[in-house]
Amino acid sequence: MKKRILIVGGVAGGATAAARLRRLDEQSEIIVFERGEYISFANCGLPYYIGDVIKERSSLLVQTVEGMSKKFNLDIRNFSEVESIDRQNKKIKIKNLKSGEVYEEKYDDLILSPGASPIKPPIKGIDEAKSLFTLRNMKDTDEIRAYVDENLPKSAVVIGGGFIGVEMAENLHERGVKVSLVEMMDQIMAPLDFEMASILHNHVKENGVDLILKDGVAEFKNHGTKVVLQSGKEIDTDMIILAIGVKPENKLAKDAGLDLGDRGGIKVDEYLRTNDKNIYAIGDAIEVIDYVNKKPTMIPLAWPANRQGRLVADNIYGKNRKYNGTLGTSVAKVFHMTASTTGNNEKTLKRLGIKYEVAHIHPKSHAGYYPGALPIAFKLTFNPEDGTIYGAQGVGYDGVEKRIDVIATAIKAGLKVEDLQDLELAYAPPYSSAKDPVNMLGYVATNIMEGSLKQIQWYEVDEVIEKGSLFIDVREVLETEMGYIEGTVNIPLGELREHLNEFPKDKPIYVTCQVGLRGYLACRLLELNGFKAINLDGGYRTYA
Amino acid sequence: MKKRILIVGGVAGGATAAARLRRLDEQSEIIVFERGEYISFANCGLPYYIGDVIKERSSLLVQTVEGMSKKFNLDIRNFSEVESIDRQNKKIKIKNLKSGEVYEEKYDDLILSPGASPIKPPIKGIDEAKSLFTLRNMKDTDEIRAYVDENLPKSAVVIGGGFIGVEMAENLHERGVKVSLVEMMDQIMAPLDFEMASILHNHVKENGVDLILKDGVAEFKNHGTKVVLQSGKEIDTDMIILAIGVKPENKLAKDAGLDLGDRGGIKVDEYLRTNDKNIYAIGDAIEVIDYVNKKPTMIPLAWPANRQGRLVADNIYGKNRKYNGTLGTSVAKVFHMTASTTGNNEKTLKRLGIKYEVAHIHPKSHAGYYPGALPIAFKLTFNPEDGTIYGAQGVGYDGVEKRIDVIATAIKAGLKVEDLQDLELAYAPPYSSAKDPVNMLGYVATNIMEGSLKQIQWYEVDEVIEKGSLFIDVREVLETEMGYIEGTVNIPLGELREHLNEFPKDKPIYVTCQVGLRGYLACRLLELNGFKAINLDGGYRTYA
Ligand SMILES: Cc1cc2nc3c(=O)[nH]c(=O)nc-3n(C[C@H](O)[C@H](O)[C@H](O)COP(=O)(O)OP(=O)(O)OC[C@H]3O[C@@H](n4cnc5c(N)ncnc54)[C@H](O)[C@@H]3O)c2cc1C
Ligand SMILES: Cc1cc2nc3c(=O)[nH]c(=O)nc-3n(C[C@H](O)[C@H](O)[C@H](O)COP(=O)(O)OP(=O)(O)OC[C@H]3O[C@@H](n4cnc5c(N)ncnc54)[C@H](O)[C@@H]3O)c2cc1C
Ligand SMILES: CC(C)(COP(=O)(O)OP(=O)(O)OC[C@H]1O[C@@H](n2cnc3c(N)ncnc32)[C@H](O)[C@@H]1OP(=O)(O)O)[C@@H](O)C(=O)NCCC(=O)NCCS
Ligand SMILES: CC(C)(COP(=O)(O)OP(=O)(O)OC[C@H]1O[C@@H](n2cnc3c(N)ncnc32)[C@H](O)[C@@H]1OP(=O)(O)O)[C@@H](O)C(=O)NCCC(=O)NCCS
Ligand SMILES: [Ca+2]
Ligand SMILES: [Ca+2]
Repeated sequence: MKKRILIVGGVAGGATAAARLRRLDEQSEIIVFERGEYISFANCGLPYYIGDVIKERSSLLVQTVEGMSKKFNLDIRNFSEVESIDRQNKKIKIKNLKSGEVYEEKYDDLILSPGASPIKPPIKGIDEAKSLFTLRNMKDTDEIRAYVDENLPKSAVVIGGGFIGVEMAENLHERGVKVSLVEMMDQIMAPLDFEMASILHNHVKENGVDLILKDGVAEFKNHGTKVVLQSGKEIDTDMIILAIGVKPENKLAKDAGLDLGDRGGIKVDEYLRTNDKNIYAIGDAIEVIDYVNKKPTMIPLAWPANRQGRLVADNIYGKNRKYNGTLGTSVAKVFHMTASTTGNNEKTLKRLGIKYEVAHIHPKSHAGYYPGALPIAFKLTFNPEDGTIYGAQGVGYDGVEKRIDVIATAIKAGLKVEDLQDLELAYAPPYSSAKDPVNMLGYVATNIMEGSLKQIQWYEVDEVIEKGSLFIDVREVLETEMGYIEGTVNIPLGELREHLNEFPKDKPIYVTCQVGLRGYLACRLLELNGFKAINLDGGYRTYA
Repeated sequence: MKKRILIVGGVAGGATAAARLRRLDEQSEIIVFERGEYISFANCGLPYYIGDVIKERSSLLVQTVEGMSKKFNLDIRNFSEVESIDRQNKKIKIKNLKSGEVYEEKYDDLILSPGASPIKPPIKGIDEAKSLFTLRNMKDTDEIRAYVDENLPKSAVVIGGGFIGVEMAENLHERGVKVSLVEMMDQIMAPLDFEMASILHNHVKENGVDLILKDGVAEFKNHGTKVVLQSGKEIDTDMIILAIGVKPENKLAKDAGLDLGDRGGIKVDEYLRTNDKNIYAIGDAIEVIDYVNKKPTMIPLAWPANRQGRLVADNIYGKNRKYNGTLGTSVAKVFHMTASTTGNNEKTLKRLGIKYEVAHIHPKSHAGYYPGALPIAFKLTFNPEDGTIYGAQGVGYDGVEKRIDVIATAIKAGLKVEDLQDLELAYAPPYSSAKDPVNMLGYVATNIMEGSLKQIQWYEVDEVIEKGSLFIDVREVLETEMGYIEGTVNIPLGELREHLNEFPKDKPIYVTCQVGLRGYLACRLLELNGFKAINLDGGYRTYA
């Protein structure tokens, strides 16, 4: 059946849907409306073009209007804003932004992939601020890059410590700009838990960024050359990047009476259909189901948009393919480090009242004896009763997102923590260890589940010390000189057996080491000798 | 119950078993017998120490006899060769290689982890060859390194293109030695299929290695300063590395009447128990079940040895944990490239008469517009009827083993090719693409299964051309100037629709492009217009 399919938005979701539609049917009429000048550009590359890491502007333009029209026989109309949807008569109203002309087009099926837009709250002085930018598309990018090229700013305030804020901090730094990064929460990169983000806090500071946490903007003064924070602190600046998050582009949908979620995302069923059976919606504009906790959420990332773009095309042709929810797998380069996450973190699980356990490990990126091995901090969240994997986080220099990808795969496949032990992953010294970090997370988590490893978390240490419990640091004497937990007693693991008669049998003995491994060995030793032993998860490194 | 557990072999499998045994029981008596001087050394690091990439010899010694004895309360006896097993009386005979003393020890349970030894065939002149080495342990390593340090050899012949041979070629090259690499088969790195290994052939040659394929050694002349090949070719050399494979150390087992497999591996059940209920065997010495095709095989790698070491300890304590077979996931650094595999390749499937399909893709390691993106060649083997994933191979510069790890995880989890589409993997421009290569393999393979992509393989091209079929190259004119398949007609994809009336409707039309993607688009276009279209899998790149 020859169909007339209209698509609103011509970038990640929209362009993917158009391409796939044409691969399913040569006859249908497919019209893509994009209000901007460009379709199919590399949103995710924009910060790096500003940082001049990506040199060629043209390389950001994955497909051009002309090239893609020809390749896929599409009617692509840029500078064309869709203004409203007439659901009754299955038509939309479009404004040609160049000519001002307004016209209508009829559809059999309509796909909405309008994306999201940067949040711009009504902060005092925001409208007067001259060099204040947000970053979403090519136009924003051209403006920021031109500003940097022409004005050679010395300083910038980046507001918001999410991944776009952090990428902008890094890329402006690349351009020689002194950056202050302001974040309202006590941490950057919200998908990480606090102790994981802390590693990045040190790293961005070491790279010359002035990191200001737990503080928000109160006012922009002097046309945005002074940023006043809620704490009263004032920062003089040559430019401002506002990157505090995005909100779904839902106006069209809302005006047309389509169902929206609590946070404004367009509601769709598992086939990506709105409450109007001829209108589908995809990408950043929609509410998705969190794959782990099954609650509605917003996850504005490129993988979901691309995936949904393909599925929606299939569903329009009756293939009935389900979108199975979003894990939120992500990765970001933060100066020389990499942070990557999948699934639910501890904060989320706590907030939702889901019973969970966590495990921290600090393995090397690859075999320690091969050059370049650097530690990675990994954290796994899981259900201690049935071993369901809830999520994982990694922060390190190399090999971080590789392990998160494996765990993301394991979650989607319904594997349990026990199964992580048995994943047979590629090993040679330059790449990994004979027991991959993922295997190790499996071992540690399974030991926790089976009760052969009892542990406390970094935030419970102070309380234990205050109570005066015996807390043994089993590292070598030399290691403790680099720092130790006040109130611990140092007995190296190799000597522990000689001291057993000094320990109480009736009270728990707490143990720590550098990363948790030797603490675990000490705990096994103590437990098997009739003591109650509890390990500090992640050891001194997670605590410090 | 206090047990007396004896372990033969103190490296990957043996040391791991000993450590885990102690974590399960503080009372048992555990004695480790190792005939060499060292236990728990980094076998896999040895080539790199010879290449001086790893600088510190001590870093190869993961655990020392003294340190490990103390930490785990073990009785570790090095220079101690186990000579025989008396199954009837549950005791073994040991020879102290320093004193010559022979004595016996009784066991409740015996673990064999004796490893494997390099194959040394009775080639003419082999015993007289002076600077001929094999590489398995610290002693071999010390000898080779000393030879290179002291004699500064100018040339070397490495015999065998398996991963140890290739690693030695690379590391001798690092030391300024001109290397000839001689391999009997038509390809190096047997876990790869031919067209995948070919990429490496070019690469090792570009790196100055004289690669000699399809030729074996006939004779060593002049005390090994001349290597005569079966082709008659003679190579003068300062040293020889023999790396043509390993055979299981099965003498003890054989003499004791334990069951062996066809290739000499010790037979064990899924709990790693031999046909004697008090004797277990693990590591390179055993026959394992191929995880994919369920046939017995030998896979001498570190992950299986380590995994089995832990499981055997658990099983001795009645935990009944199954070893689920070996996938053979592997990775090797080959100069600047990485080759990685998991599961069964095409050769194996063909040999076993298993019905399969393959898919080749050549995605970039990460987003093309972000600096440093380089193509990776991936190949997936799968069951075209039910979508079972049989295996995968990757050759490239970066991000290779990451995707193989994901696919290894998918195989272990029983995912089908269709499920690869839906894996939500970490994406940001420096790391991947919004559709990860693994997703892409899932899309391509599923299209093949569903019949929306029909293809031929690189080795079928010549036949098709000879038959005079229409074979269209849909690349841009410019691209074809870098090389093309003789007999193809160039019509760029964007112009294909204008030529439809020129094509035959009754005969299949063959299509190729650079890597297969545009060929697929052209095929969809042709098919949806009523033609029969067949794509060249992997495009010109796989063919060339
Ligand atoms: C700077 C930046 C960096 C990013 N980095 C990453 C990353 O590293 N990894 C990652 O996974 N994701 C990243 N993302 C997010 C990713 O780009 C988005 O998730 C993805 O683009 C969403 O696709 P979409 O189709 O929903 O929206 P978009 O790609 O934004 O496309 C929506 C299009 O619709 C158009 N439009 C909206 N309304 C109308 C209308 N009424 N009429 C006509 N056209 C309309 C808009 O102009 C826009 O071009 C990044 C985003 C940005 C901005
Ligand atoms: C150079 C090299 C590079 C490698 N690189 C990799 C790699 O990159 N990735 C990978 O996965 N694998 C690699 N491997 C393979 C890996 O090292 C082995 O699979 C693993 O060590 C096998 O463990 P095992 O315990 O079975 O044997 P081994 O680790 O070899 O230990 C067996 C020990 O038993 C001792 N022994 C044997 N018989 C007796 C006896 N009768 N009495 C007393 N002691 C005895 C031997 O002396 C030996 O030390 C490499 C191997 C080598 C040699
Ligand atoms: C460029 C864009 C239009 C591509 O859409 P697309 O055609 O669906 O995607 P690709 O070019 O990756 O091609 C994928 C198709 O080629 C097929 N394919 C890929 N490699 C192949 C190969 N070697 N052989 C055969 N087929 C192949 C896949 O099966 C898939 O086809 P299918 O969906 O019909 O199964 C769209 O992704 C886009 O606009 N991207 C830029 C915007 C964006 O994503 N921004 C966010 C990230 S920066
Ligand atoms: C060194 C060697 C003896 C280690 O054996 P091991 O103790 O089993 O292994 P590890 O040191 O990695 O420790 C793993 C244990 O620590 C635990 N662990 C690891 N990190 C932990 C952490 N942060 N917190 C708590 N526990 C942790 C694991 O759960 C596991 O214990 P389990 O098996 O009881 O569950 C052995 O692997 C060996 O000899 N290796 C060198 C030889 C070799 O492998 N060669 C081939 C490759 S080069
Ligand atoms: Ca690495
Ligand atoms: Ca990379």
